[in-house]
Amino acid sequence: MGKQVYFFGAGKAEGNTKQKDLLGGKGAGLAEMTNLGVPVPPGFTITTEVSVAFMRDKKIPAELHGEVERALAEVEKIVGMKFGDPSAPLLVSVRSGARASMPGMMDTILNLGLNDETVAGLAKRTGNPRFAWDAYRRFVTMYADVVLGIKRDQFEEILDEARREVAREKGVDPRLAHGEELKRTVPDSDLDAVRLERVTNACKALVEKKTGQKFPQDPKAQLWGAIEAVFHSWMNPRAVTYRKIHDIPEAWGTACNIQAMVFGNMGDTSATGVAFTRDPSTGEPKLLGEWLPNAQGEDVVAGIRTPRKIGVTGRTTVDAESLEVAMPALYKEFLDVAERLEKHFNDMQDLEFTIQEGKLYLLQCRAGKRSGKAAVRIAVEMVKAKRLSTDEALLRVDAESLNQLLHPVLDPEVVKRSNPIARGLNASPGAAVGAIVFTADEAERRAGRGEDVILVRTETSPEDIHGMKAAKGILTARGGLTSHAAVVARGMGIPCVAGTSALAVDEHKKLVRVAVTGEDGRSVEHVLLREGEMLSLDGGTGAVYRGSLPLKPADLSSDYAELMGWADARRTLKVRTNGDTPKDARTARNYGAEGIGLCRTEHMFFGDDRINAMREVILAQNREERGVGLTKLLPYQREDFEGIFREMRGLPVTIRLLDPPLHEFLPHSAEQIEHVAKASGLSAAHIARRSEELYESNPMLGHRGCRLAITYPEIYAMQVRAILEAALTVSGEGVDVRPEIMIPLALSKKELDLCKEIVDATAKEVFGAAGKSVPFMYGTMIELPRAALRAGELAEVAEFFSFGTNDLTQTTLGISRDDADKSFLPVYVAQGILAKSPFTALDQEGVGELVAMAKERGRKTRPNLKVGVCGEHGGDPSSIDFFHRVGLDYVSCSPFRVPIARLAAAQAAIRAGGITGGSGTA
Amino acid sequence: MGKQVYFFGAGKAEGNTKQKDLLGGKGAGLAEMTNLGVPVPPGFTITTEVSVAFMRDKKIPAELHGEVERALAEVEKIVGMKFGDPSAPLLVSVRSGARASMPGMMDTILNLGLNDETVAGLAKRTGNPRFAWDAYRRFVTMYADVVLGIKRDQFEEILDEARREVAREKGVDPRLAHGEELKRTVPDSDLDAVRLERVTNACKALVEKKTGQKFPQDPKAQLWGAIEAVFHSWMNPRAVTYRKIHDIPEAWGTACNIQAMVFGNMGDTSATGVAFTRDPSTGEPKLLGEWLPNAQGEDVVAGIRTPRKIGVTGRTTVDAESLEVAMPALYKEFLDVAERLEKHFNDMQDLEFTIQEGKLYLLQCRAGKRSGKAAVRIAVEMVKAKRLSTDEALLRVDAESLNQLLHPVLDPEVVKRSNPIARGLNASPGAAVGAIVFTADEAERRAGRGEDVILVRTETSPEDIHGMKAAKGILTARGGLTSHAAVVARGMGIPCVAGTSALAVDEHKKLVRVAVTGEDGRSVEHVLLREGEMLSLDGGTGAVYRGSLPLKPADLSSDYAELMGWADARRTLKVRTNGDTPKDARTARNYGAEGIGLCRTEHMFFGDDRINAMREVILAQNREERGVGLTKLLPYQREDFEGIFREMRGLPVTIRLLDPPLHEFLPHSAEQIEHVAKASGLSAAHIARRSEELYESNPMLGHRGCRLAITYPEIYAMQVRAILEAALTVSGEGVDVRPEIMIPLALSKKELDLCKEIVDATAKEVFGAAGKSVPFMYGTMIELPRAALRAGELAEVAEFFSFGTNDLTQTTLGISRDDADKSFLPVYVAQGILAKSPFTALDQEGVGELVAMAKERGRKTRPNLKVGVCGEHGGDPSSIDFFHRVGLDYVSCSPFRVPIARLAAAQAAIRAGGITGGSGTA
Repeated sequence: MGKQVYFFGAGKAEGNTKQKDLLGGKGAGLAEMTNLGVPVPPGFTITTEVSVAFMRDKKIPAELHGEVERALAEVEKIVGMKFGDPSAPLLVSVRSGARASMPGMMDTILNLGLNDETVAGLAKRTGNPRFAWDAYRRFVTMYADVVLGIKRDQFEEILDEARREVAREKGVDPRLAHGEELKRTVPDSDLDAVRLERVTNACKALVEKKTGQKFPQDPKAQLWGAIEAVFHSWMNPRAVTYRKIHDIPEAWGTACNIQAMVFGNMGDTSATGVAFTRDPSTGEPKLLGEWLPNAQGEDVVAGIRTPRKIGVTGRTTVDAESLEVAMPALYKEFLDVAERLEKHFNDMQDLEFTIQEGKLYLLQCRAGKRSGKAAVRIAVEMVKAKRLSTDEALLRVDAESLNQLLHPVLDPEVVKRSNPIARGLNASPGAAVGAIVFTADEAERRAGRGEDVILVRTETSPEDIHGMKAAKGILTARGGLTSHAAVVARGMGIPCVAGTSALAVDEHKKLVRVAVTGEDGRSVEHVLLREGEMLSLDGGTGAVYRGSLPLKPADLSSDYAELMGWADARRTLKVRTNGDTPKDARTARNYGAEGIGLCRTEHMFFGDDRINAMREVILAQNREERGVGLTKLLPYQREDFEGIFREMRGLPVTIRLLDPPLHEFLPHSAEQIEHVAKASGLSAAHIARRSEELYESNPMLGHRGCRLAITYPEIYAMQVRAILEAALTVSGEGVDVRPEIMIPLALSKKELDLCKEIVDATAKEVFGAAGKSVPFMYGTMIELPRAALRAGELAEVAEFFSFGTNDLTQTTLGISRDDADKSFLPVYVAQGILAKSPFTALDQEGVGELVAMAKERGRKTRPNLKVGVCGEHGGDPSSIDFFHRVGLDYVSCSPFRVPIARLAAAQAAIRAGGITGGSGTA
Repeated sequence: MGKQVYFFGAGKAEGNTKQKDLLGGKGAGLAEMTNLGVPVPPGFTITTEVSVAFMRDKKIPAELHGEVERALAEVEKIVGMKFGDPSAPLLVSVRSGARASMPGMMDTILNLGLNDETVAGLAKRTGNPRFAWDAYRRFVTMYADVVLGIKRDQFEEILDEARREVAREKGVDPRLAHGEELKRTVPDSDLDAVRLERVTNACKALVEKKTGQKFPQDPKAQLWGAIEAVFHSWMNPRAVTYRKIHDIPEAWGTACNIQAMVFGNMGDTSATGVAFTRDPSTGEPKLLGEWLPNAQGEDVVAGIRTPRKIGVTGRTTVDAESLEVAMPALYKEFLDVAERLEKHFNDMQDLEFTIQEGKLYLLQCRAGKRSGKAAVRIAVEMVKAKRLSTDEALLRVDAESLNQLLHPVLDPEVVKRSNPIARGLNASPGAAVGAIVFTADEAERRAGRGEDVILVRTETSPEDIHGMKAAKGILTARGGLTSHAAVVARGMGIPCVAGTSALAVDEHKKLVRVAVTGEDGRSVEHVLLREGEMLSLDGGTGAVYRGSLPLKPADLSSDYAELMGWADARRTLKVRTNGDTPKDARTARNYGAEGIGLCRTEHMFFGDDRINAMREVILAQNREERGVGLTKLLPYQREDFEGIFREMRGLPVTIRLLDPPLHEFLPHSAEQIEHVAKASGLSAAHIARRSEELYESNPMLGHRGCRLAITYPEIYAMQVRAILEAALTVSGEGVDVRPEIMIPLALSKKELDLCKEIVDATAKEVFGAAGKSVPFMYGTMIELPRAALRAGELAEVAEFFSFGTNDLTQTTLGISRDDADKSFLPVYVAQGILAKSPFTALDQEGVGELVAMAKERGRKTRPNLKVGVCGEHGGDPSSIDFFHRVGLDYVSCSPFRVPIARLAAAQAAIRAGGITGGSGTA
């Protein structure tokens, strides 16, 4: 390990923005801002390497002490105050800051350096004893919580008790004042210095009672306690969960930033705020932010006080509360800094600032989190402004975030006729319809059952993440655009309406009271909504509707079209879709699919007439009886294929022959069996017996896929006939038809030989009878480890491979997806045994090796072998990156994920090949 | 392709015994015998390469015609007769002959060359018109059956009609005479030349009616038809099945032998017979054979006439029917030839001979099939006689055949007190107890359900093979030691009693009538046995008992001990056993096991008290409740381990921690649930709910193995405690204890890390409390493809690997063993998609590659990594050969297969390293 501490301050810093890995995002930003001459309080950053060593060795490296001492002395020199000096006490903040932003996940301590002596010094120096004691009280509370592990609510209770005293003095019955109401009745400003001193002493007494030791008075001891706590917080459960969701490796560790405190709560010339250089929802290029006068930073993001807008530019009415109007000079200074920083980083910035007694300080700058829509707009505008190359712009957009653009919106026609029951902030775009739930656990439970839910909370906290992830939409009563709910929802691409003040949420009674303003604009009616009731919300407008409103597909912007054009030009991996119907085909083609990678024929058997014919096939006693049922299925299949071929004219259509075990088509309950018996004229006993015969203890590893063709060749023969007859018909209409017949679950060349005999014999018959033919390809899925190992042989027969990575994952890892999701798999992901569910992101080390091996062996036999992927991983960006590197020809995914795959494929090509025409500044 | 035809005759042959691959076993034997000066009718062999070309091109290679013509001319010259010459017609046999013996599986045609003209010539030349027409009739029937595909029974009916005529003439009511009874009433000898001519003409007319063409009269056309039929017969379903069972590759093809006919049915100076140079059941060195005067070869093996013994030497009574007494000079000549041949080949010979009018001809010699007991005795005696090296001797014994020596026998004490219900020939050694079945299909069905069955047949045919394989024992009413039943049963190592003439089997009525001789030795009582009744038989003595007699372990000979000593000295692969109890451990140690490779701890949970404690663990609501159940289980486990450690003193014991999914331990039916509810004091609803919670759609890929330890670490902790406490106790008794703790179903290093934490923490506690410790190893099973791929990483933690090839096969091939065995797997094996069930013989191409890869990657990380196999493949000779070649350290198999594995391991070492001290003659 090299240098462990990087100093910044007084216009020069030892680090810079390129050292994010070492200094974390926050530390690198502070260093870069300092070097740019932006006003930043001085401080220093302890590197991520120290945190990694701390996790490993469970102790602080010895050399760190000297380096911290030296850096602290520098800070003292610059600010002219001394750590622990009662006459001019230096106070510092101690904050975590990892390579990637993890908002609210780790711990922060402010006002460190205060003790019974320095608090007096601070009071004297600022001439504001109330401010000093408030700062000390906050510090004791935070330190006790973060470093000493004493729950915050016990300190809040001490504070509430003081409020109740004031209330009593005011003549208000304190029994009527609870929680928020008490805070409103007795705002913090009603607590004077004397009372705050008493509160602080009570807090210290609580610490002593809980820990058996006095609250630490030595500022150095406080500092080292805080540093260790920040390092520990990297491993807290919230942070671990957040990293899993966002693919952040544990091994990165976090940096720790120690910085001289500045105060936004030193009176009316002080303030604090946060801002984005562009609108994070739409990408519109204007400064957007929130601030509070006389407040500390946490007050803005915590959602306790409703923050004010920063600017008024472009608005029709002047907002007296805006920073622009309240402090015009400082507003202008901040605007200049913001513009400089955006230009410098060539990216939308997320800034934190504090104004202390009329002087502006920047406390943080980082690339701002943004919605998919904003990401696209910003990326395209930056290219047009020649600030980014197209490659850079493509990398700037999180492929997964396109999901938001592609999400359906509430049907505008219906919206026009509907009155929202409430309006909140448009915190994360997209529309959502679902049943109301009040807890994260309930959200997860219902979503696990396939229900769409809207999570309704007063405000969200990091403990709610699993429920937020499971919900279709999030609705909060409090908090702004930078509240926890808003930031996390945007990151996850989940629609969110925040700060909907008309709501009063009671999660214990499981109901929410909505204050609905009457048509006269004054009268208020209260509507009660209970758990399970349906709600619709529009995260783009902030409107909330009672009941289920119809959804319509999204309208994609021209920026989107432009970006996707660049992506298509850049990528080499083709993108197909998985689709079983002409409608799927049309949707996917509109989204840019270049063919169908997987058409699952069995889905065609589930229609009402069809399922009966299919059951006839399965219940047949012999081949002739089976033939009767198959003859009934033939026209249905043919018709489906004709529709698909027409939609996909000129593009390949890969059709997988029957795959699932036959008993999936049979009825199982006594009732259903009786029903089928009546419909089919067969005895219920026969049906039950056949169903029992077909029962398998592990159907996933059972009699399915091409194994069905070996035992019942006539089924595949019917399907091939339907495909080829449909192809002849549509081809006869002058349409370019490109069928690819795909054999599932092969494990040996011999199976492919036998199935090929069926295909060839049927083709000979069909083409012979028609007197003409259409070209088609013959290939197989690779979904068993043995198929991957024997790929060289399989490619002797198969003209193409398509990796069925879902089943290949199940067999390679020995994990049954459906079972595991409800039992051990979540635990495996939580414990880091698997970084992510292997059914979401390809297990590159295991399954990936088989994919690479199969592709290599297949191509060795047949150099022009076409190789693609049709598992769900075909729509996952990290998996697509892998498939590109391995050199596959295409991925195939669900229609709505086609644009994501197109962008991810372009990003993969750029990453693998290097950025072309880079601006060099990013 | 080179030379296609190899001639032999008049003391010199173009081929020799080393050319078995090219000439087949029969052809090579005929060539070698000719070269040795043994009397062999002249002929020639068409090579196996021609048959391979014929299968590929579907036609006879053009060059073959000339080569056959030339060879045929040579034969004509030697015998002084001409093919198709009415005055001196050459007749030939056309027989298949593959590299490996496949008795009765392929087709043979005799007397070829007869037509309406040559039959007259043959009659004139032999002065025996009856003989000539009988030969012609047989030829027409055989040719029609084999070449023209007309079922034989229609020709039999023509013959029966002639028999009925004779019966009428004799005054017997022909309606009373059917089948066997008719044959006894009118033996073949009652059919004179005139009548046989009429029968022959009727047969020819039938051919014309069926084929629309006259029976072929041109001998050359007959010959080519027969040659093609022989090649075709390589692919008939019987042959295909036989090859699967005996691991004979389809690609070998068959040779075709054309040889001048000699006749054993030319009167009383003619005869035919078969013989072994040693007793194929015991290995005793004496000529053992059967013959029939005035008969063709098929009469002896078909079981229609009961054949006579050849020799009397060593018997107490002189047998007037023996060849030794009937034709002493010829007997002596044959004895000399037999001895010469055995010495020449240094192996026990299986010989076929024919005596034509006082002249001896040898028609076949080959290594004789033998029982395991005989194989061991012969091999050891040949070494003692310095005729074989120990390496050669080891290769001579089919490892699988040791199974027969190790099989239990009927308890001799009980046998002493029991009267057999019948006695037959001791056709294949070993004892069997099971339920009577009358058809192969029923045998297979019941065996599939886990029932032990005895297949009872009048005689067996190749169509019965699947049922013979499924049966524990075979009992036939007819046929000698060389009958189909006897030969096949010996080959398969299944006990068989043949030719039990007291039986009358009626498979339609599903009963067998046994004629039981009374105590007076004269009165006969008839006992009826029905399907499903129990029968016990002793293939070593030929005794058949009604009911179930108790079985006792086999008593191994000193020859066996000697052979196994050589095997142990030669092999490098160690052999351990799979055993879960001290009793298993003792048995296996007696059989030579060098440790326990797999001790399945869950089997210990099924005892009555134990299952209740285990259920407590599973039904517990929290960790504390689980702890209570685990505390009850601890002493049971500890006691079991103590017993095992004592038995295996000085040898390693690999203990697998809990593997199966928990619901395997729970009750499922309402009744069982009620029972457990009473026993446990828990509500039935709770038990049912827990059982439902634990239900998995694919338990094979479910929550099991070390996945249980991740979610319930306390279970493994209890097991590790039991192991280590037991080890301490037994070690304290001065016993050398070597526990190896094995983690099942790992797919990642992280799982091994987490389990190791449990193991290490428990060890620290246990050893700390005891104040002493025992060394132990920590390792894992490799049973998932991902584990094989990530083996390099796993070996960072694991000190040993054990391949769980059962599960590795299930996941690599995506086949659920239990399900597949009843659905598609038999079809896959029958169709050659898989050469053998991959659960019997390792799939070397698929699973084998993963085994090799994992071993290589594991050893790269940890050069001294111990690597073994504990799947069922550890006891399969072909798999053991593979494991030796891959370089594993040991295999582990069930106790009874330990000797098989020891021998197979020695053979693998010899095959891989080359024979040491070979005699050079084999």
